[in-house]
Amino acid sequence: MGNKDVKVVSFWISPFARRVEWALRLKGVDYEYIEEDIYNKSPLLLELNPVTKKVPVLIHDHKPIIESFIILEYIDETWNQYPLLPQHPHQRALARFWANFAEQKLLDHAWIAMCSSGDVQEKALNIARDAMEKIEEEIKGLKKFFGGEDIGYLDIALGWISYWLPVLEEVGSMQIIDPLKHSATIAWMNNFLSHPVIKESLPPRDEMLAYFHSRRKALSSTFQNFFKD
Amino acid sequence: MGNKDVKVVSFWISPFARRVEWALRLKGVDYEYIEEDIYNKSPLLLELNPVTKKVPVLIHDHKPIIESFIILEYIDETWNQYPLLPQHPHQRALARFWANFAEQKLLDHAWIAMCSSGDVQEKALNIARDAMEKIEEEIKGLKKFFGGEDIGYLDIALGWISYWLPVLEEVGSMQIIDPLKHSATIAWMNNFLSHPVIKESLPPRDEMLAYFHSRRKALSSTFQNFFKD
Repeated sequence: MGNKDVKVVSFWISPFARRVEWALRLKGVDYEYIEEDIYNKSPLLLELNPVTKKVPVLIHDHKPIIESFIILEYIDETWNQYPLLPQHPHQRALARFWANFAEQKLLDHAWIAMCSSGDVQEKALNIARDAMEKIEEEIKGLKKFFGGEDIGYLDIALGWISYWLPVLEEVGSMQIIDPLKHSATIAWMNNFLSHPVIKESLPPRDEMLAYFHSRRKALSSTFQNFFKD
Repeated sequence: MGNKDVKVVSFWISPFARRVEWALRLKGVDYEYIEEDIYNKSPLLLELNPVTKKVPVLIHDHKPIIESFIILEYIDETWNQYPLLPQHPHQRALARFWANFAEQKLLDHAWIAMCSSGDVQEKALNIARDAMEKIEEEIKGLKKFFGGEDIGYLDIALGWISYWLPVLEEVGSMQIIDPLKHSATIAWMNNFLSHPVIKESLPPRDEMLAYFHSRRKALSSTFQNFFKD
């Protein structure tokens, strides 16, 4: 499995970059980790990803692949062991749909809510809570993971909910996950965080809190007009 | 190929829905077309797609599939003839990346620019033109299509540029495609629109103009604060 032809350009707290590492680890693909300073981007990153200049970048066979969901598809197509996406096209379509949905409705709006206050926060929270409600419905009735007994594509895609979202909630002094309403989500979060591959690949919570507090402060003016029309 | 088990819930002017039809036609999969009134959504649409309530919906084997790019993947995985995505994982990743990029940077900002004026229009136009520039670089050196001699996934994904974008430009009295700078794009547009499957599956241009003029009027206040921070 040793394969130093595989590199991941990452940023320690990025939930997007972490997905790439989880997928490689689940498949047993060895990789080199390269930490990027996203506030002072390296010539390497700008060369690898001149279009969006973002992490994560997966480098394989000296070629860069960007965007975490696209990288997950690439990993699943390149290394056949431990398939991530379901086999049936309809199940694959559902996994892709819910991955995008959680990103656009839950993650983006939890982020806006964390960085804002008043009306803007309330509107963003409503969208995030509504998304959480719908995701809870999808999680209900799962065996253990979306991938069945094992972690699959959609578990990886939504994995941030188990660890990043509670930090965003704490920093924003807000509640999105409601233990009384989202018991299936909470059970799934516990399963996810107990998995040996995941629990050894998480950033330190105290450093996350400090980092997101500083982002909240820096970005609070940016989102004040977000929903104005 | 006759397969009335396949239905497409569409809206006549939607470039997203049109992609689904192009893909099915290229593969020779027969389908039933169902026109949806997106301003007065039918019980059928709300039942098929309760989460986003949007078209297109592909119905296959009585199951709904939503989101045009996800539907394209589903179609390619379900009907093997005339493959849409490239075979190599790295080429597949690039096709997926540019499809998303064009959607978020070019389509979304061309739409905002069409519906706005002044500073907001100028900012949106800058983003759209920058995206057009990058897409031109990708089109340069193509044989005929992204799919080589034949239309592929990325041609379908970007197909709206050839026919919808010039209408948006006209309605917004703005220029995004510059014939002097984007000659490769213009050659590709002509190839795309000359393809027998595409040219017989386009909405009438005069009706598109009237429709987008009415949308511009209806939405012009919505985007006035879009870039405010």
